[in-house]
Amino acid sequence: MAEPRAVNRRRLLGGGAAVAGAAGIGWGAASSSTRAVTTARDPMATVPFHGPHQAGIATAPPDHAAFVALDLRPGATRADVIGVLKIWTDDAARLTQGGPALGDTEPELARRPSRLTVTVGLGPKVFGVAGVQARRPSWLAPLPPFTIDRLEPAWCDGDLVLQVCADEPTAVAHAVRVLCKGVASLVTVRWVQRGFRNAEPGASPRNLMGQVDGTVNIAPGTADFDRLVWDDGAAQPWLRGGTSLVLRRIAMTLDTWDEIDRDGRELTVGRTLDTGAPLTGTKESDDPDFAAVDRYGIPVIPPSSHIARAHHTSEGERFLRRGYNYDDAPIPGHTSNSGLLFAAFQRDVAAQYLPVQKRLAEFDALNVWTVPVGSAVFVILPGVRTPGDYLGQSLFEG
Amino acid sequence: MAEPRAVNRRRLLGGGAAVAGAAGIGWGAASSSTRAVTTARDPMATVPFHGPHQAGIATAPPDHAAFVALDLRPGATRADVIGVLKIWTDDAARLTQGGPALGDTEPELARRPSRLTVTVGLGPKVFGVAGVQARRPSWLAPLPPFTIDRLEPAWCDGDLVLQVCADEPTAVAHAVRVLCKGVASLVTVRWVQRGFRNAEPGASPRNLMGQVDGTVNIAPGTADFDRLVWDDGAAQPWLRGGTSLVLRRIAMTLDTWDEIDRDGRELTVGRTLDTGAPLTGTKESDDPDFAAVDRYGIPVIPPSSHIARAHHTSEGERFLRRGYNYDDAPIPGHTSNSGLLFAAFQRDVAAQYLPVQKRLAEFDALNVWTVPVGSAVFVILPGVRTPGDYLGQSLFEG
Ligand code: HEM
Ligand code: HEM
Repeated sequence: MAEPRAVNRRRLLGGGAAVAGAAGIGWGAASSSTRAVTTARDPMATVPFHGPHQAGIATAPPDHAAFVALDLRPGATRADVIGVLKIWTDDAARLTQGGPALGDTEPELARRPSRLTVTVGLGPKVFGVAGVQARRPSWLAPLPPFTIDRLEPAWCDGDLVLQVCADEPTAVAHAVRVLCKGVASLVTVRWVQRGFRNAEPGASPRNLMGQVDGTVNIAPGTADFDRLVWDDGAAQPWLRGGTSLVLRRIAMTLDTWDEIDRDGRELTVGRTLDTGAPLTGTKESDDPDFAAVDRYGIPVIPPSSHIARAHHTSEGERFLRRGYNYDDAPIPGHTSNSGLLFAAFQRDVAAQYLPVQKRLAEFDALNVWTVPVGSAVFVILPGVRTPGDYLGQSLFEG
Repeated sequence: MAEPRAVNRRRLLGGGAAVAGAAGIGWGAASSSTRAVTTARDPMATVPFHGPHQAGIATAPPDHAAFVALDLRPGATRADVIGVLKIWTDDAARLTQGGPALGDTEPELARRPSRLTVTVGLGPKVFGVAGVQARRPSWLAPLPPFTIDRLEPAWCDGDLVLQVCADEPTAVAHAVRVLCKGVASLVTVRWVQRGFRNAEPGASPRNLMGQVDGTVNIAPGTADFDRLVWDDGAAQPWLRGGTSLVLRRIAMTLDTWDEIDRDGRELTVGRTLDTGAPLTGTKESDDPDFAAVDRYGIPVIPPSSHIARAHHTSEGERFLRRGYNYDDAPIPGHTSNSGLLFAAFQRDVAAQYLPVQKRLAEFDALNVWTVPVGSAVFVILPGVRTPGDYLGQSLFEG
């Protein structure tokens, strides 16, 4: 009944093969190796709430995130939408600074914000409900269907979204609860997706396929970032300082991924597993050379590889990737339920995100092992510049 | 359509009430307050695998845990059970020391063990399958039903259990995957329960009701601990150095909990929310004085409170609590799905755990807001003293 691999391993182990590891002394305490690089995490660290943009986008990603989509209850009005946004503004302003929300019933759980950010967005339907249809960004709609999609409605769409990030999951859990229950009479929770990422100092985190993920990105604080991420108000003046979020829930079929060898895996992505360097380089930060060929004239980075296909063909085809791993309880009969909460921020979904997504859907060597099971698009509101103002104010009062 | 609380809050906020927080400067970076207490986490830290006891019990609890129950496939034999345990021994010995498992297909994910521990146990059925029925500890059986229980079979029982803990969820995810897929031909995953806890330096972590949780416990390295947790082999010589795990999945009904005021909450537990001090003391570490009465002769710590009911009535009624919070995606129509993965370790479930659980099931003021939805009991195998030996060896060969 055993499969080949298990049989081999059992044979190997049955022979009493020596096992790596120290003898049984000092077993009670953790030992720190000479390679040790300590990660300092400050549970009291805060990210400012007020500013021209919402936090949680240009913010260096904390270890934990929850994405929450909510739906307006039937019969909801413009006043209800504004009510939700006012409550969230006040809650987020307090919680992110390490204080309890108004009427917080677990104020002690607010004491350790650990870089908590709350980022709020709206789905397409809200513009109709709130009577501001003309202010809806042209790109705000579900993505078109792709042949690679196996979307489950339970992971798609939503009228409102919260992205809640912090280094401590307790801070995330508390903020999500406060934000959801404060508006429970007006909205219902549609889905919650939780994720994590573990930053390596000086390197990008790894996804659950084992790849270094997040290397080529646009850097906060640069002119590129400002131009590509933040809306300038040209089309929709109220949206100046806002942006958009595309959230794709992408399952990894790890069982078949684990059947291909390392060469195959590296050719699939175009980067090495060890350091994340492009196949044409030696360090993670090296620029891939998509034109390089070997002595037989064959491209070193296959044109079918994920990075060759995903690489922008024009400057305007770029966006901020800020994803998180997910690792949920497996469904019966399966060993894992893992993947990526692929979160992309860009000022124009149609111009920046869609061409890349279309190209990948047409062909990407990685598609064999990745399956989009959820998809949602939201407009991310501008920041709250002044205490007393509320999220979305320019949409309703501007 | 708005409920009272939302209406109040909206009225409050609609008035443009000033919101706490700094003005919009320097919004891109996290700022660290003067109260800052940095938590140093070493992603390279390891906990020794070999020793008289398995790691993950006397080990200071890392931030993240996954509990995984697995069932033997129909027709499984004694050799299959031994095969699983040999594979897990080898995997755990390598992974916990920061190395890849044999044939690890994502070896890079093994590089940051961050205090990874793997703790292995067996459920009742294995003893029959493996032909060692006479060696089954007398207490190894599901707990008797309690009137407070609302158990869901999906969260109960199991033939084998893995407790996987680490500070980084990526390390937990990788270890769980390696351990499960290496034996997928022999067992199926029954349930996976993931949890987290955020230790506060010099204090116990908080659960999602906001309480300081974990104060009164037995301390590793003491004679009490050794006597109460580790089996001495008197009844079952093979079990010397082993112990037992009771895992109760206990849902918190936070919506109704949030309706009672702070006094009510503190009287329910017998401790303050602010510091976790007993109602008769001022610091978390103060001993509760269950005999103290106020000037009307009423007990300061109500006899119905959780700590009064849970407090041991004899020295032998104690055990190690090593629980984790869970915060899963809410089921439709609900706002939260939170609770406690209550994990208790003791050498004798019947003598130590059951009397306390029975007393709490009979009456505990906290029961109004806590609902046991899962329950499982496992024998935790002795440690592997010598590299080359395997988990459970004394059971099969001793
Ligand atoms: C589970 C699904 C996915 C996995 C595992 C994955 C993994 C990776 C990896 C390992 C890299 C190379 C390192 C880096 O630059 O970060 C990468 C790059 C990239 N990915 Fe993905 N990715 C996934 C889905 C997507 C999707 C859906 C998009 C966009 C629609 C996308 C867009 C990009 C882009 C733009 C790059 C940088 C390419 C370059 O210019 O070098 N990826 N991805
Ligand atoms: C969701 C369910 C539960 C919650 C929220 C909870 C919470 C707490 C809290 C806040 C304390 C006081 C601080 C401390 O000493 O850690 C405590 C103490 C304690 N709890 Fe629980 N508990 C739960 C379930 C249980 C269960 C099921 C048992 C055992 C069957 C148990 C046994 C104990 C014991 C023995 C103490 C220490 C009492 C003393 O001697 O002072 N608890 N619990």
